Amino acid sequence: MRFVVIGGDAAGMSAASRAKRNAPALEVVVLEQTHDVSYSACGMPYNISDPGREMEDLVVRRADVFRERQGIDLRTGHRVEAIHADERRVRGSTRHGEDFELAYDDLLIATGASPIIPDRPGFDLPGVVALKSLDDGRRIRRHLTESRVRRAVILGMGYVGMEMCEALRSREIEVEMVKPGPVLLPWMNPELSGMVVEELKANRVALCLGPDVEGIEGGGKNLKVVSRARTWECEMVLVAVGIRPNSRLAAEAGLVLGPAGSISVDKMLHTSAGGVYAAGDCADAYHVVTGKKAWIPLALRANRAGWAVADNVTGRRAELQGVAGTAVFKVFDLQVARTGLSLKEAQAEGFDPVETVIRSRSRAHAHPGSVPIAVQMVGDRNSGRLLGVQMVGREGVAHRVNGPAVALHAGMTVEQFSQSDLAYAPPFGPVWDPMLTAANQLLKEM
Amino acid sequence: MRFVVIGGDAAGMSAASRAKRNAPALEVVVLEQTHDVSYSACGMPYNISDPGREMEDLVVRRADVFRERQGIDLRTGHRVEAIHADERRVRGSTRHGEDFELAYDDLLIATGASPIIPDRPGFDLPGVVALKSLDDGRRIRRHLTESRVRRAVILGMGYVGMEMCEALRSREIEVEMVKPGPVLLPWMNPELSGMVVEELKANRVALCLGPDVEGIEGGGKNLKVVSRARTWECEMVLVAVGIRPNSRLAAEAGLVLGPAGSISVDKMLHTSAGGVYAAGDCADAYHVVTGKKAWIPLALRANRAGWAVADNVTGRRAELQGVAGTAVFKVFDLQVARTGLSLKEAQAEGFDPVETVIRSRSRAHAHPGSVPIAVQMVGDRNSGRLLGVQMVGREGVAHRVNGPAVALHAGMTVEQFSQSDLAYAPPFGPVWDPMLTAANQLLKEM
Repeated sequence: MRFVVIGGDAAGMSAASRAKRNAPALEVVVLEQTHDVSYSACGMPYNISDPGREMEDLVVRRADVFRERQGIDLRTGHRVEAIHADERRVRGSTRHGEDFELAYDDLLIATGASPIIPDRPGFDLPGVVALKSLDDGRRIRRHLTESRVRRAVILGMGYVGMEMCEALRSREIEVEMVKPGPVLLPWMNPELSGMVVEELKANRVALCLGPDVEGIEGGGKNLKVVSRARTWECEMVLVAVGIRPNSRLAAEAGLVLGPAGSISVDKMLHTSAGGVYAAGDCADAYHVVTGKKAWIPLALRANRAGWAVADNVTGRRAELQGVAGTAVFKVFDLQVARTGLSLKEAQAEGFDPVETVIRSRSRAHAHPGSVPIAVQMVGDRNSGRLLGVQMVGREGVAHRVNGPAVALHAGMTVEQFSQSDLAYAPPFGPVWDPMLTAANQLLKEM
Repeated sequence: MRFVVIGGDAAGMSAASRAKRNAPALEVVVLEQTHDVSYSACGMPYNISDPGREMEDLVVRRADVFRERQGIDLRTGHRVEAIHADERRVRGSTRHGEDFELAYDDLLIATGASPIIPDRPGFDLPGVVALKSLDDGRRIRRHLTESRVRRAVILGMGYVGMEMCEALRSREIEVEMVKPGPVLLPWMNPELSGMVVEELKANRVALCLGPDVEGIEGGGKNLKVVSRARTWECEMVLVAVGIRPNSRLAAEAGLVLGPAGSISVDKMLHTSAGGVYAAGDCADAYHVVTGKKAWIPLALRANRAGWAVADNVTGRRAELQGVAGTAVFKVFDLQVARTGLSLKEAQAEGFDPVETVIRSRSRAHAHPGSVPIAVQMVGDRNSGRLLGVQMVGREGVAHRVNGPAVALHAGMTVEQFSQSDLAYAPPFGPVWDPMLTAANQLLKEM
């Protein structure tokens, strides 16, 4: 029996390792087009922030460990170009230009996602970079040093844009964030995103919301980002306008696609083709709040889905409930977290949502060092269900979001969640945790 | 209609305030034997740690605010001595020695709990103190200064003992903790409590487990704590061997008592007598894991129960699900949290419990500043249910326990909890949150 994995990052290597552990006799082949496997992609901004570190710090397990200690047939520099699902066979070429073909009993597509690069002039110039792969990270580190970057423009403002903003400022680089559209973090409640804007400004990040960038001119050490209204000069442009699933192989093989062109999978991670699984940033998932398909590419899901595929391939049935869209990021000293649906998402999904925003504190009454925490909470007027939470503050935000995340998995109503027995001690929060204050307030408004 | 409340702290004042808000025409009378109402009792150790603060910082709302702005008839210095439940009447005396009687339509007993003082010689000496009321706190502050306390002995080691240990050490007082019985924090897994022991030792707290203190001798600036084996000299003894519910009034009125002599209440906080409620540290609660009665006196439950009583008294039906026993405390730089049942508690409740302990990290692979987090998790082999979690670490513990706490309310299995979509970003944890690593490990052992 041969289990072939396309893609050697989070989902792929999790699946390969666990499959081999579950079933040592199974032949496990991983085909990875780059040289890099098993690295902490999310750690790249924090690596780039420190001139003294190496990108290699982020490698969790080296290729030779997979090969020699785990017995995985890991083939780097192997690019798969076609999947012949009816013949259970993949075809591709190596970095040396040699073609290869490989039959499989089970196949996992774990091809990840790629940054969206606008199809406009100049986005291919040297110094215009994105951040997804470890090679992207190396390129940025090199460019920062070699071109002595003093000014950078970040286009778009997702999680990665925010984190890179902090990373570049910590290297004393001037940062200008330019985002098409009038709103920073459109999924956020405006009161909360206003706190993020203030944090960026306090750290001397220039923010420019609205302009439609028409192109980039120049090159090397003199880049010009051009919009109708104005021009930004810099030595580096980070393109962080979003990512898209790498689903071309799957689409060409005739597999059914889901939201945003991701590969559609069931709870066992089966695609529409027999013996073919998909996992990680290229695949969709069920959303635990809506019960519908969603594409929310995050690291935990990738790892978890990789494990589930391994279990299913080795005869241990595994089903995944789905995702709640729980996420957190840090931007300077601010922690920003969310789980579930935003108000607009809830409206679009046909709920009758009610939103509340409360301000609480990170520590108890009169406890020194307390800072504000702002919480947004959304519930459904019809069913009473909790639908989502957003939160911003300088401490106590990152893990606090996990309580409501679990409540979403359990399908709790706001009233049920409001009765949760949460931890209290003066250094860690008020007697009524900010989550409970938000739930109590939301109940009044529902 | 008259609503009478006995006790003006967390549960009592929460109930009085909310009842008046719900129904402004209701006559609300609070009878409080001391002068202090509505203060943050849990904040006292952090107040005592700072010689520059005043105990009055901990008053959340002053008596005149309740009286003048909220229209509550708050009578301090009024001690209730008997409840005549069939006549709906209470009787007592004021601090000036005047007797009073008061009829009620609804009554709330919110008499709290008191420190247990061993019935042995010398526990009434000056310099031998406990910490529960604001007056206790004032007494300790005064004694620390007036007797120039350089050495203190803390007897017993619950949450308050731990917090006071930190408070006294931060004032450069030598602290010796003396506990009867061989184990520090008997509810904790030994591996985790070992981390607490190490933290105490690292902060030069002398620990003495085992001795049975026979009495205290001396007085004023020269106290001697005496056990069969040895003697400890000090200027202050803090007695923190536990608390007991103040349920004498209720017992004498013939009300049914629950665990540990607490006042038995249903989910609407009714006692066994018509029109009589109980809430706060004097009352019991349903435990969400066992479904049985438990006495777990904590601040959130007191506030929540006070509100629920107010709602029920004013015709808005409120039922409380119960408690999960979620708690957190800080001891020096360590955060210690728990929710649900310990292994022994689970065994005693008739479950077939399996326990696992894992070590994880507070931040992602290769992220600077990461510290260990140890997690204990208990599940039931028969039902698959999650039963409890304990956790110790220098960061990321306090709020992390809320995820499993919510899972206990939802009655989740370990498998269901293990599928939770928890937040991940490198500064805040590994991709697999320590809660999930523990759940995954526990699943293997169940």
